[in-house]
Amino acid sequence: MRFTSEQRHDDGVLARDFSLGDIPGTLWTPRTTPAPLILMAHNNGLPRSDARLVARARYTAGVHGYAVASVDGPGSGDRPGPAAVERAGADLRRAMQAGEPVDEILETLVGALVDAAVPDWTATVDALLRLPEIDGPVGFTGWAALGIRLAVAEPRIAALGLFAGGHVPRAQREHARQVTVPLLLLLQWDDEGNPRQRALDLFDAFGSTEKTLHANRGGHLGTPAFELEDTCRFLDRHLR
Amino acid sequence: MRFTSEQRHDDGVLARDFSLGDIPGTLWTPRTTPAPLILMAHNNGLPRSDARLVARARYTAGVHGYAVASVDGPGSGDRPGPAAVERAGADLRRAMQAGEPVDEILETLVGALVDAAVPDWTATVDALLRLPEIDGPVGFTGWAALGIRLAVAEPRIAALGLFAGGHVPRAQREHARQVTVPLLLLLQWDDEGNPRQRALDLFDAFGSTEKTLHANRGGHLGTPAFELEDTCRFLDRHLR
Repeated sequence: MRFTSEQRHDDGVLARDFSLGDIPGTLWTPRTTPAPLILMAHNNGLPRSDARLVARARYTAGVHGYAVASVDGPGSGDRPGPAAVERAGADLRRAMQAGEPVDEILETLVGALVDAAVPDWTATVDALLRLPEIDGPVGFTGWAALGIRLAVAEPRIAALGLFAGGHVPRAQREHARQVTVPLLLLLQWDDEGNPRQRALDLFDAFGSTEKTLHANRGGHLGTPAFELEDTCRFLDRHLR
Repeated sequence: MRFTSEQRHDDGVLARDFSLGDIPGTLWTPRTTPAPLILMAHNNGLPRSDARLVARARYTAGVHGYAVASVDGPGSGDRPGPAAVERAGADLRRAMQAGEPVDEILETLVGALVDAAVPDWTATVDALLRLPEIDGPVGFTGWAALGIRLAVAEPRIAALGLFAGGHVPRAQREHARQVTVPLLLLLQWDDEGNPRQRALDLFDAFGSTEKTLHANRGGHLGTPAFELEDTCRFLDRHLR
């Protein structure tokens, strides 16, 4: 793991880009270390440089004292993806322009993105847990389909805070039954692109003894600001 | 309004029983006053002396600094009710002993309890807001059917924290469309006596621009302790 840039913010958070082989990532560490690690990813492979993700990472590190990491997996952000991702991405653009249904294309695209991302995120956890700034249990927040897969594959993940605002392929909806760690699922009640019933069925499927659903009125981008604090309080209950 | 008993607790909370005409009630006030008022009631007319309600009132006053009040309306707690309540209560006991369906009997019973309770709660708000210990906006937590009716009838109520764990008659489910104040609806995902879909439909019906649903795995009595703190934080956002 090689750090390629470093920026110290007023709130004491140190933001560093890193490379791990060909995996590009960012690590935000709080003033006081060592700290537990939160993996943070946008739904559907959106880039780790997205302003909303950066704001969440800064808050989680600066106010709640976690180390936060995000990486762009193959096909996520600007990073080129495997053939299956590129093909499905082209199909998606074509279908959206033609106004055709995209559900089955998203099924293929998000499935391929998750398949490609899992080894990179696992390798990143291995590398990050060797840093002196990080110790303790690991949490995950954000991209639901990836979080489900990581939680099943990765016993070090002890809490999942997921946003039911992206497409969750059938395979991951099945995997949800195997998830047993504490879960907070966040849902926008009027999310245009994500059927409400599918999100409620996903919540129902999780095997976790402790699982909580937060649903708020409004569309995909309308999640109230207080939910970020609620997610951090959820993490505090399980990682501190 | 006449105070009939007084108890000072270690956390600074002063608990006083009162009578307002024939309405029996309890007022919990925090160390620092004046404070905003929270009306707190159990679903289905359970008594204000119930240990779970008392614990919630003590926490809300002691930790979050609210004045909290609860009254037993006609037919609630030990207080005798009007004929319609007594008749439906007898029908309910008979049906439960016989293992017969109770949904329509609850419809009648809870409807009659709410009808009887509304004037008492409104008179209590009038009297309490004249006390020097209380000022500011009013919140309501607990009994969903009563909270909906009070929020429609009583413009001083500025925030509603409801537990979807009691029977909500059809009339109140219709009234929910007229509720526009901020709302937190709490739901137990596996509540034996309260159909999940009915609670989700109730959440959907509320007219409030800001409305949040919290659902937790588990049965009727399994609400996690952290939800009390979440309810108080919701009240803080709207009443402070």
